[in-house]
Amino acid sequence: MRHLFIIGIGAGHPDYITIQAVKALNLVDIFFFMNKGDSKDELVRLRKDICERYIEHHPYRIVESVDPIRDESIPDYKTRVQQWHLERVQIYEDLIANELSEDATGAFLIWGDPSLYDSTLRIIDQIVARANVPFTYDVIPGITSPQALAARHRIPLHDIGESILITTGRHLASGKPIEPENILVMLDGHAAYKDIPDQQTQIYWGAYLGMENEILLSGTLEETAPKIEAARAEARERNGWIMDTYLLSKPAN
Amino acid sequence: MRHLFIIGIGAGHPDYITIQAVKALNLVDIFFFMNKGDSKDELVRLRKDICERYIEHHPYRIVESVDPIRDESIPDYKTRVQQWHLERVQIYEDLIANELSEDATGAFLIWGDPSLYDSTLRIIDQIVARANVPFTYDVIPGITSPQALAARHRIPLHDIGESILITTGRHLASGKPIEPENILVMLDGHAAYKDIPDQQTQIYWGAYLGMENEILLSGTLEETAPKIEAARAEARERNGWIMDTYLLSKPAN
Repeated sequence: MRHLFIIGIGAGHPDYITIQAVKALNLVDIFFFMNKGDSKDELVRLRKDICERYIEHHPYRIVESVDPIRDESIPDYKTRVQQWHLERVQIYEDLIANELSEDATGAFLIWGDPSLYDSTLRIIDQIVARANVPFTYDVIPGITSPQALAARHRIPLHDIGESILITTGRHLASGKPIEPENILVMLDGHAAYKDIPDQQTQIYWGAYLGMENEILLSGTLEETAPKIEAARAEARERNGWIMDTYLLSKPAN
Repeated sequence: MRHLFIIGIGAGHPDYITIQAVKALNLVDIFFFMNKGDSKDELVRLRKDICERYIEHHPYRIVESVDPIRDESIPDYKTRVQQWHLERVQIYEDLIANELSEDATGAFLIWGDPSLYDSTLRIIDQIVARANVPFTYDVIPGITSPQALAARHRIPLHDIGESILITTGRHLASGKPIEPENILVMLDGHAAYKDIPDQQTQIYWGAYLGMENEILLSGTLEETAPKIEAARAEARERNGWIMDTYLLSKPAN
């Protein structure tokens, strides 16, 4: 029977990978690299580096495929994403059926952790439900960017007994009130932190976490937001892409 | 100068450890094992196993110390925890000053990730502020039990674009309304999920995640809560301790 691994490879630095992931990498015959077709060539290179660095004796092949882009003419976000997932289900199903022989092992490598803001598991679920191609699969967790952020800033994500909300820039920008003292924001392309009314809120921001070009900034929003904006613009210009995340913490009373 | 590593060693299974953590383990002269002084001997054994398994040539010594217990006569939770931290600051500071020579490297091994529901970083911060013992330190992230939970259930932690609240059993039991669609509950010794009014809420529960005696249960609260209660009682009886966590997800509309 075909087997798939959905492997979290961590937040950027190759050392963030787990032993469990390294063991799985060494069982894989075919890696499916789903590329965004934009300037993120470095992200392809980083995944290749991980394979070369950690796979010792097992022969493997990389199959690169271009992920479809979202149809921005669909106004509703959830509908747009669902439509996009449907296209991807077909592509992934074809890859598994055509590239993976019946006793082979394939893998998708996921930045961070497959359980957090990644859609591969939802796509796999739909392929399983369609039942056109039989396969078994396992999921391997990885270090997320919020964890790398906390480690690099050497902070806990919360004060004693507090809660943390993990959310998106989109959600933060919607202006709906957010309760918890600590908010971890991912996927924020539009600097939603600028709309937080309390300028004494602490922000801990990081980009390219654990990588050579890592940037860390922290302080009150009042002091730090302009620095982050400048650093983001400069880094995006220089690298062609940015992966960043941040923690907002209410000021201590 | 003395150096410390605060190393996340993952959620239980030794394979959850990262390459970054393995590299750090191989630099450590003294490991500080802070024991709870109860029936969690297996947790000491698991940490020793990790050292034996992953440290290749570097000589090391393990210093075991008993963590003080919280004074349950202090009624306010936060005050009680702060008082407990203060005692621990003194103990940890003494350990660093007395056990670690001036050019040596020490380490604290943390279950899961040092940024999530662990107080070592807060204690280290206070020791730094007291400035009695000079040292540098680094933090290394680790796979948390919520990530192991999601991987073992092979689920994402949220539906498309949704948020996740990471919180404690104490907070959940307080009865305050909780907004997000997905709630990850840690440190719940009292089955706070039983008080969730909507019995169609989905629960994904796991104990001893990634370990030999792992238990996974999922379904609606109505169907699954009694099974979890029975499994918890049985497992706690058999093992003398339990580490468990769960995800609550609102039913799809």
